[in-house]
Amino acid sequence: MWLGFDIGGTKLAVVVGDEAGRIAARRRRAIGASGDPRTDVNAMLRDAHELLAEAGVAASALRGVGVAAPGPIDFARGVVESPPNLAGWDAVPIRAWLGEVFEAPVHLENDANAAALAEWRFGAGRGAQHLVYLTMSTGVGGGLVLDGRLYRGTGGAGEVGHMPVEWGRDSELCGCGRRGCLEAYVGGRRWTERLARITPAASRVAALAGAPAQARPEHVLAAAREGDGFARGELERWNRYLARGLVALSYVLAPEVFVLGTIATAAGEALCFEPLRRALAAAVWPSVARKSEIRGSGLGEDGPYYAALCAAFEASPPY
Amino acid sequence: MWLGFDIGGTKLAVVVGDEAGRIAARRRRAIGASGDPRTDVNAMLRDAHELLAEAGVAASALRGVGVAAPGPIDFARGVVESPPNLAGWDAVPIRAWLGEVFEAPVHLENDANAAALAEWRFGAGRGAQHLVYLTMSTGVGGGLVLDGRLYRGTGGAGEVGHMPVEWGRDSELCGCGRRGCLEAYVGGRRWTERLARITPAASRVAALAGAPAQARPEHVLAAAREGDGFARGELERWNRYLARGLVALSYVLAPEVFVLGTIATAAGEALCFEPLRRALAAAVWPSVARKSEIRGSGLGEDGPYYAALCAAFEASPPY
Repeated sequence: MWLGFDIGGTKLAVVVGDEAGRIAARRRRAIGASGDPRTDVNAMLRDAHELLAEAGVAASALRGVGVAAPGPIDFARGVVESPPNLAGWDAVPIRAWLGEVFEAPVHLENDANAAALAEWRFGAGRGAQHLVYLTMSTGVGGGLVLDGRLYRGTGGAGEVGHMPVEWGRDSELCGCGRRGCLEAYVGGRRWTERLARITPAASRVAALAGAPAQARPEHVLAAAREGDGFARGELERWNRYLARGLVALSYVLAPEVFVLGTIATAAGEALCFEPLRRALAAAVWPSVARKSEIRGSGLGEDGPYYAALCAAFEASPPY
Repeated sequence: MWLGFDIGGTKLAVVVGDEAGRIAARRRRAIGASGDPRTDVNAMLRDAHELLAEAGVAASALRGVGVAAPGPIDFARGVVESPPNLAGWDAVPIRAWLGEVFEAPVHLENDANAAALAEWRFGAGRGAQHLVYLTMSTGVGGGLVLDGRLYRGTGGAGEVGHMPVEWGRDSELCGCGRRGCLEAYVGGRRWTERLARITPAASRVAALAGAPAQARPEHVLAAAREGDGFARGELERWNRYLARGLVALSYVLAPEVFVLGTIATAAGEALCFEPLRRALAAAVWPSVARKSEIRGSGLGEDGPYYAALCAAFEASPPY
């Protein structure tokens, strides 16, 4: 059995499961980032021991322990560096801390990589040899499974949210401090900020949100489904920029499948995947484009459990 | 021993060598593309048998035979599809044809992939786990060695010349029929066409070339070394677009080393690699950029022999 943790900006998922993805016990709760990572990790460990007891698994019987956490991560040292969304977490040697508690090997993985592995082993990318995963939540994360294994490069590979999709002084500012990144156009935070700025007070988006300042991507999706012009225009822009990223990734990686999470999964076939497929068919050579599929996430709400489990598999591969 | 062929638009290289890259016999000559691929291949085979005799290697002692050829290639069937620079070559089943002659396994590789392998095994990328190779000759070819092996994706991976580096109606037309590709800005053919169009008659570039219409990238490099303003401006533009490609590739692949061939190798440190390093340092997160190096080709004129040999290693890996 494997033990996994998925540490998000606001939630912690803990899971005990096996190599087939059968989950013996799981728990998700708000992570009250206390500002003191040692306190947070001790709370995680209490959860873990309760779950192991619930599943009837002795800690000594674990084959691997995994942690999926927001980057940047120092893979070589097993250290969470200083994720913008985890207050007080700065250079946290979480692999060493868990190594003091568990006999099994411990692996620390970046959350988007773990999610890519989860989609590949248990989700929308099962059976693919070459998978590109993109998630468009707060920022844009990416993970690459190439030739049937996670590709990390020198550590930071798969940061597809920071590929440039626009150049010049007018290009949008990204959370990373640079301009023109894919994330600056399709990331949830930046899009939400833009919506607050430009949503017309009389629009359907504003009506669904309550006020322009409360407009969020989900209101755009709902209004677009009702045929609202402003929402359709916003979504068209969002798809256009996402397609720019996918075009570049197609030429570089020629993947079998793109798995697109969060906003794209919520938007679905008509509002997202079909327009993206048309854009790729127009911009990518047929010999490459016809071998690539675009799919939504196959794991939904359970994604973090499978991501945590896949991070644990990396500690001690079951296959 | 291995037998390799590198088929270029104008030249054919044939080599007999071993797993350490020791070359027992080699030959390069003009490939008189006869318009009939069967005739061209028979000429290649005569060369091969003469070289094998010269090296004292029996054809039956070969462990692998490789062919590096311009794409597009059908890897699964071992077919050269219809390279724009090989007249009359259309759906040539070269693997099957060589398989009728040699007992050893035959592998057909795209030329840029073979060159990437050659730089990785014997050239500027020795010892790297993650290498991105770009060559800027007529077009822009690319090859990816990731996690210590060639990455092909669904077949067309590494076509980095067709990553978009500019969007919009004004962006330059590429040889592939699309607009805004990296190749449209930094490929030798497109740059040469541009130089013929815009080189001032009174410039140093025109003087070196004889006339504006004869201006080529090598004249720009020579004039830039002499401090010519027009040449420096052209090179700055060329570096700026090449940097856009390398920035995107850095975020996606986080390679240890970029090996840049042809025009970049000829331009060298001061005119190319140093400006590129500055551009990457400004646009790529330090955590990624500081782990990547930029180098020129380490094989020079012998590149095609090593590329041919590496294509042969793919038929029957020595390692």
